Amino acid sequence: MANANMNCWPLIVIGGSSERSQETMGAFQEFPQVEACRLYSKFSARPSSIETIPSIIEKAVRSSIYGRPGACYVDIPADFVNLQVNVNSVRYMECCMPPPVSMAETSAICMAATVIRNAKKPLLIIGKGAAYARAEEGIRKLVERCKLPFLPTPMGKGVIPDNHPNCVAAARSRALQFADVIVLFGARLNWILHFGLPPRYQPDVKFIQVDICAEELGNNVKPAVTLLGDINAVTKQLLEQFDKTPWQYPPESSWWKTLREKMKSNEAASKELASQKSLPMNYYTVFYHVQEQLPRDCFVVSEGANTMDIGRTVLQNYLPRHRLDAGTFGTMGVGLGFAIAAALLAKARNTGQRVICVEGDSAFGFSGMEVETICRYNLPIILLVVNNNGIYQGFDVDSWKEMLKFGDATTVAPPVCLLPNSHYEQVMTAFGGKGYFVQTPEELQKSLRESLADTTAPSLINIMIEPQATRKAQDFHWLTRSKV
Amino acid sequence: MANANMNCWPLIVIGGSSERSQETMGAFQEFPQVEACRLYSKFSARPSSIETIPSIIEKAVRSSIYGRPGACYVDIPADFVNLQVNVNSVRYMECCMPPPVSMAETSAICMAATVIRNAKKPLLIIGKGAAYARAEEGIRKLVERCKLPFLPTPMGKGVIPDNHPNCVAAARSRALQFADVIVLFGARLNWILHFGLPPRYQPDVKFIQVDICAEELGNNVKPAVTLLGDINAVTKQLLEQFDKTPWQYPPESSWWKTLREKMKSNEAASKELASQKSLPMNYYTVFYHVQEQLPRDCFVVSEGANTMDIGRTVLQNYLPRHRLDAGTFGTMGVGLGFAIAAALLAKARNTGQRVICVEGDSAFGFSGMEVETICRYNLPIILLVVNNNGIYQGFDVDSWKEMLKFGDATTVAPPVCLLPNSHYEQVMTAFGGKGYFVQTPEELQKSLRESLADTTAPSLINIMIEPQATRKAQDFHWLTRSKV
Amino acid sequence: MANANMNCWPLIVIGGSSERSQETMGAFQEFPQVEACRLYSKFSARPSSIETIPSIIEKAVRSSIYGRPGACYVDIPADFVNLQVNVNSVRYMECCMPPPVSMAETSAICMAATVIRNAKKPLLIIGKGAAYARAEEGIRKLVERCKLPFLPTPMGKGVIPDNHPNCVAAARSRALQFADVIVLFGARLNWILHFGLPPRYQPDVKFIQVDICAEELGNNVKPAVTLLGDINAVTKQLLEQFDKTPWQYPPESSWWKTLREKMKSNEAASKELASQKSLPMNYYTVFYHVQEQLPRDCFVVSEGANTMDIGRTVLQNYLPRHRLDAGTFGTMGVGLGFAIAAALLAKARNTGQRVICVEGDSAFGFSGMEVETICRYNLPIILLVVNNNGIYQGFDVDSWKEMLKFGDATTVAPPVCLLPNSHYEQVMTAFGGKGYFVQTPEELQKSLRESLADTTAPSLINIMIEPQATRKAQDFHWLTRSKV
Amino acid sequence: MANANMNCWPLIVIGGSSERSQETMGAFQEFPQVEACRLYSKFSARPSSIETIPSIIEKAVRSSIYGRPGACYVDIPADFVNLQVNVNSVRYMECCMPPPVSMAETSAICMAATVIRNAKKPLLIIGKGAAYARAEEGIRKLVERCKLPFLPTPMGKGVIPDNHPNCVAAARSRALQFADVIVLFGARLNWILHFGLPPRYQPDVKFIQVDICAEELGNNVKPAVTLLGDINAVTKQLLEQFDKTPWQYPPESSWWKTLREKMKSNEAASKELASQKSLPMNYYTVFYHVQEQLPRDCFVVSEGANTMDIGRTVLQNYLPRHRLDAGTFGTMGVGLGFAIAAALLAKARNTGQRVICVEGDSAFGFSGMEVETICRYNLPIILLVVNNNGIYQGFDVDSWKEMLKFGDATTVAPPVCLLPNSHYEQVMTAFGGKGYFVQTPEELQKSLRESLADTTAPSLINIMIEPQATRKAQDFHWLTRSKV
Repeated sequence: MANANMNCWPLIVIGGSSERSQETMGAFQEFPQVEACRLYSKFSARPSSIETIPSIIEKAVRSSIYGRPGACYVDIPADFVNLQVNVNSVRYMECCMPPPVSMAETSAICMAATVIRNAKKPLLIIGKGAAYARAEEGIRKLVERCKLPFLPTPMGKGVIPDNHPNCVAAARSRALQFADVIVLFGARLNWILHFGLPPRYQPDVKFIQVDICAEELGNNVKPAVTLLGDINAVTKQLLEQFDKTPWQYPPESSWWKTLREKMKSNEAASKELASQKSLPMNYYTVFYHVQEQLPRDCFVVSEGANTMDIGRTVLQNYLPRHRLDAGTFGTMGVGLGFAIAAALLAKARNTGQRVICVEGDSAFGFSGMEVETICRYNLPIILLVVNNNGIYQGFDVDSWKEMLKFGDATTVAPPVCLLPNSHYEQVMTAFGGKGYFVQTPEELQKSLRESLADTTAPSLINIMIEPQATRKAQDFHWLTRSKV
Repeated sequence: MANANMNCWPLIVIGGSSERSQETMGAFQEFPQVEACRLYSKFSARPSSIETIPSIIEKAVRSSIYGRPGACYVDIPADFVNLQVNVNSVRYMECCMPPPVSMAETSAICMAATVIRNAKKPLLIIGKGAAYARAEEGIRKLVERCKLPFLPTPMGKGVIPDNHPNCVAAARSRALQFADVIVLFGARLNWILHFGLPPRYQPDVKFIQVDICAEELGNNVKPAVTLLGDINAVTKQLLEQFDKTPWQYPPESSWWKTLREKMKSNEAASKELASQKSLPMNYYTVFYHVQEQLPRDCFVVSEGANTMDIGRTVLQNYLPRHRLDAGTFGTMGVGLGFAIAAALLAKARNTGQRVICVEGDSAFGFSGMEVETICRYNLPIILLVVNNNGIYQGFDVDSWKEMLKFGDATTVAPPVCLLPNSHYEQVMTAFGGKGYFVQTPEELQKSLRESLADTTAPSLINIMIEPQATRKAQDFHWLTRSKV
Repeated sequence: MANANMNCWPLIVIGGSSERSQETMGAFQEFPQVEACRLYSKFSARPSSIETIPSIIEKAVRSSIYGRPGACYVDIPADFVNLQVNVNSVRYMECCMPPPVSMAETSAICMAATVIRNAKKPLLIIGKGAAYARAEEGIRKLVERCKLPFLPTPMGKGVIPDNHPNCVAAARSRALQFADVIVLFGARLNWILHFGLPPRYQPDVKFIQVDICAEELGNNVKPAVTLLGDINAVTKQLLEQFDKTPWQYPPESSWWKTLREKMKSNEAASKELASQKSLPMNYYTVFYHVQEQLPRDCFVVSEGANTMDIGRTVLQNYLPRHRLDAGTFGTMGVGLGFAIAAALLAKARNTGQRVICVEGDSAFGFSGMEVETICRYNLPIILLVVNNNGIYQGFDVDSWKEMLKFGDATTVAPPVCLLPNSHYEQVMTAFGGKGYFVQTPEELQKSLRESLADTTAPSLINIMIEPQATRKAQDFHWLTRSKV
Repeated sequence: MANANMNCWPLIVIGGSSERSQETMGAFQEFPQVEACRLYSKFSARPSSIETIPSIIEKAVRSSIYGRPGACYVDIPADFVNLQVNVNSVRYMECCMPPPVSMAETSAICMAATVIRNAKKPLLIIGKGAAYARAEEGIRKLVERCKLPFLPTPMGKGVIPDNHPNCVAAARSRALQFADVIVLFGARLNWILHFGLPPRYQPDVKFIQVDICAEELGNNVKPAVTLLGDINAVTKQLLEQFDKTPWQYPPESSWWKTLREKMKSNEAASKELASQKSLPMNYYTVFYHVQEQLPRDCFVVSEGANTMDIGRTVLQNYLPRHRLDAGTFGTMGVGLGFAIAAALLAKARNTGQRVICVEGDSAFGFSGMEVETICRYNLPIILLVVNNNGIYQGFDVDSWKEMLKFGDATTVAPPVCLLPNSHYEQVMTAFGGKGYFVQTPEELQKSLRESLADTTAPSLINIMIEPQATRKAQDFHWLTRSKV
């Protein structure tokens, strides 16, 4: 159904429900599914007849991609499967046109440009919305033309490559905390951005919100300027302003100096951690070695707690829409499904792009059995399980045994601990894929090299790390409670 | 809370719920109200504490007016009423800014202009959305500059005055049925516009949709052009196009001729009906006399079946946002509440504008007791009850008596019949307002004259009409089933 | 559909929804009605076809009367109205059997009897559930055989006549507060019974709960004994126990003495108030005069605040299921509908029973227009509007005028005030019924006498009372916050 | 919280939700969870404060086990975790009493006994409700005293041992189809019992329904007798009837003869299949060998399609409440969770009972990763994966390879096929448990023997069967569409 030229991918769930004539009778898996999906979807409906299936699907596809994108649900009762219908009674629907594009009003654009020009400590935040809007070219131009520092949100990574000199991700907390003007491109001021509130931000920071969704504008803060419209189109409008009256933020400003210094010290701290020779490895060591071999055009999928959070700071994205992680909801269990989807897309496009799926050991437990699907379809996904034997923290084998002296695991094992030294790689070999159990940087390098070299089969690298490994010290906790 | 300069009026319902500590215990009026309002509102929430009331109210107001406007619900539990809170712990919120304005993309505007220029039988439909967007000036310029015929939807009436020479409301069915290009300004292709489908439209009619809501675009039809954005802003964009390359639709085209002829014959038929001398009066006679005296700047509120439908065709609106009727949902019972709101607004603005509330007798029954409120606040509303003793059709007194010979009213009276010759005007006099029982055009004229002359008190004119009176013959039934 | 022998009346709401083929298109009054009714009903469904209507209706009827009774919703889409169906394809359903009857287990019955026998200060509370279960004969026998004091809940009134010597309603607060054993017959420990908690009850009071609904047992308190089953059947089981080993509570106990004294003093206080000669009348004067003339077999319908609460203490019920009021939810607007239903039932049964509908003036405003229905069907209902010009408290005419000197009513009138001296009786005369505006006991007596004498027509008596009239002093406020 | 003597196990889900003060702000995992759980639970609530947690939990536990049992949801917001509360402000709740017991009314019991006595072709169906009600002793007595044939539903298995001579499970379709009187003990007439309708039943079959839930009675059929109450108590009432006037159904009746003959032929057919020597094995061979070694007191957990359906007919239950399967909803993914719960119970009770979890390969894929939990807690569960390489039907390795010649697996593999010869046993060995890959009866026997012998560790036996293996021919399809 999706238009060949369509840049957006509708997200439609088709559900099968019980036979209509048996409803209220206790039919097989009878449930009010349309109603149950209401809270989770932009549009949830059951076609009233086979004849109306095309129009319902058209509306679901359209609702999914027009306006702020979202999932839609279409319910197909079991009896539809065998019903016959006169082909002439069906009203066929063409696929909808690509999403309509709207722009911000000119006066707001001017005001935004003025606020940016007057910023002492400007910052751009590039969100998932910018990626969906395919605004990468425009935003990059804006960053480079105006020489502005930027920061991606987790799934905004890659809209501009992470290694761009203006990326200040390595000084994230500092950048958020002291910026006086922040331009949000499709980034919501939710928990991921600490609601836009002190102490993570200046109390008088001026937000410029660029968003496709009017109702998003003004959430939690009173923005200085709101730019409602397609993010790509609005970015171009901003660029025109800076074309007319060129301006650039002084690269030698004290703000840039502050940010660069903080980045340098943060990067040094990370490198220090990464270069530790002690075994088991820590997170930074693991991710630095992974990053070294990561193909520039690969998809990075990730889920977990520290694994996802630390991995995100080290693993670089160079292309937009090539990072898929647990997202705003922090939902575990999405990783392997995302990896399969990305691999199928790469296959369909025949780009030879690889999919690297970086999983915490706990996260892998939610959907690990999908390796069967990966092997069945022979998708050359590389699964990394960063294994600390637990959630946030686990035990090593010896401590585990020591603990068991005090009682049965059901009574003494803390709920955050998983079985130490689980051989997750065997979950892959069970289905014919390649498995590696790695404990040293060298083993990690070698297994990665081999996995990348083999473009015909999946592999899983089970990477043992220090069970007590944590993040380096942070200025703020990730979920710092803002003063609300 | 509403900003002094705000042109939009948020619709927030504040509900009181039971004391929180008694929830699940069977508290007084305990019910999951936030959940129950979910389906009916854009935003439904209960503040988690007194401290968060301001931010919840701010979000409700903002959600109500940003994007497509809609109602929001805020739930206040009973125990909040007596709780004390440190004033410093409350985070006060300023009122949100006026709704952000977005525009259509330039290429779509060009395409729309081209489609309009090439139209053989163009038509503009002006919807409620145009009224909400305060697009009256722009749309009027467009109509006049391009000499295009237009049609208002029920609550789009008055965006351009109904007596504008380009208004083809009197040839509505004809205009819809044969137009080859239709521009929708904030008008949805729902049942009111017969879904945009044959037989009420040409199968190949080209729709240009102008709307603030992306998900509305493409509903039921595949539009030729979609213009997503604030309707006022988009209209100005269109005007700029026709400024650059002026164009006007030939006033002597056969399309204009067709429309004018149809209007003439329809108007003649209406006038013919209106001039009938027989008593009881018919709808047209009533409305023609009302229209004669209606102040140009009055608010017209209306609900009912034929009363609302026929009244709409005869009673003219000259100002935007001055007609309030049962709306898309066709909900009965809203009339008196709408009238009170309009009267309070007129009072607050001190404009001396009058409110005329045109009610069917059945419709009046839904909220007639609100006359107490009207009288309590001494609002000079003029209520017209167009009384045919029933819904669609009633009995006259004699027929009613005749019928009762065959049995008790509970067994013989059709459910659509109301008590004949009810003295609704006494519902007004019961509370000190003025009441009129009118049976002739002369009585109607006189009572209206008196009611309008008295700017200090409400009145109710109970207008007896022929119980069997109906609409004049229509090309299509209002709810004609489209071929879907 | 209701079985001729059925003692229960199913409550089914049949709703009309929009045409199925237009769903999601913006059909007339399109809404997910089945889903919207879910929270309000025991069963909410739309038949999947005309053929399944009988089975859905059967299930709705059955669900409504089996187990704890409740409302059910059945949705009929518009297109069903004109659909044709082969009569042989319909599976006709017989009406369900009367609700199945269950009994408590024998050991629990024994335990309950023992607890009752050992009670020092026993109390029976007779709830709505006892009325629904038609347990009047059994409960009366139990009360009389064991000589126990009892108390009805608002809609449990009449299960045993209110003037029964064992009724201690006039000492309600005292009885609740000091009882050591309380037997609940179909009465829930919700807000109406102050959740069964101190300070309204002894902390160690022993509750014996008799209920048809297992999930109700144990709500808010830990009962001493639970008797799950049909209340009528369980009552008979208890009676058998006391048949086997007769026992009666000593009529000369100090508990009976306390209760009788409190009743005497309360009744004296009420009589004192009732006999006040000052005008305007107070609530007690009004209700004592009404009570004097009230036919023993009449239906009493009531809603309002003080009107309902005080009226309930004075107006006596002698028959079960003959009192209908705002109920657990305290929903205003139900009065006239209830009165019409009761009047239709009396008519159908040809019992000549009258319906007295006692309305507060504010309550009457919610559904006052239903007098048209009453007049249309010529139902000899007697509507009493107890008019204090407000909710809880209003102004008299002079004070109102005085107040208006300080500003417009919209700005100075408190929200709880209604227009003084509204002539609600004219809302009745407007439709041909009889209206009385009464200000003195004599006028009240006379108007009541006339209304009762006329069995062929409805009347409305608008009874002016002292706007500042309130309840006599109470030991506890009605909505006293229990320590929860 | 659960009472030590309690025979029922409440099912409460405690969910963590986001911090209350951040609601509507985009908090971490913010979602209206209480509302979302409404459709899935008997009771869904969030305590309004820490102080109310005990009473909410008490109500959830009580709601879960009183009346028809069901799941309840309690929501705990994140901020509760760190809140402090004065211990004296908490109202502690004792655990509720065991569920109240109700009985059927005596007249209905008499009527039921009479109907049974007059039956020509009687049948008892023993449902899950009988197991929950712990009615095993009474029902067994009834069966034996009256010499009646009986049939268990899937989770009613074991209430009476499957090898009881009166069990006619092997003639299920025949028994249902020709019985003239059917007594349902806690068994619903839903899809599992084909709605109680022809052609699976005689049109005039007389149903006697014994159920705890009034609203269940009369679903889909008009029963001859309804016995509302606790199934155990009602069974005892029936027994008393047959004690008073003993009666037994003649063991030499033609009905018994018919049933026995059908059982014999069905069992012969199964044995014939079970004894086939060809490899890969078929379902019957596998289950016959499993059945041979199954300890009498083990828990049998099962999910899958054919695996569950065929397994149920061969694997015997000797104890009530010792079979857990996908249940009424047919939900896949519950198996390992059920197995863990059963193993923890056996451990807590120290009975040495084993848990055998019989999984289809597809079903195992839903929750296979739970083997980590099993190994972590070292629960001696025996997992059997009955592996046919697909859902209903799969490919063998050679056919799979053949198929891949025609294209990529993503394009040519049918969606019902899984990867052939997956080594599911390695999913177990990955976590330190024992794994077996078995292809012959001998290997199966040996691996089972070893697994049963080792009471200290879990094992997984991956049993390869014929990918095209199916059920033996059936008189009716399982989901036969009844004439409704």
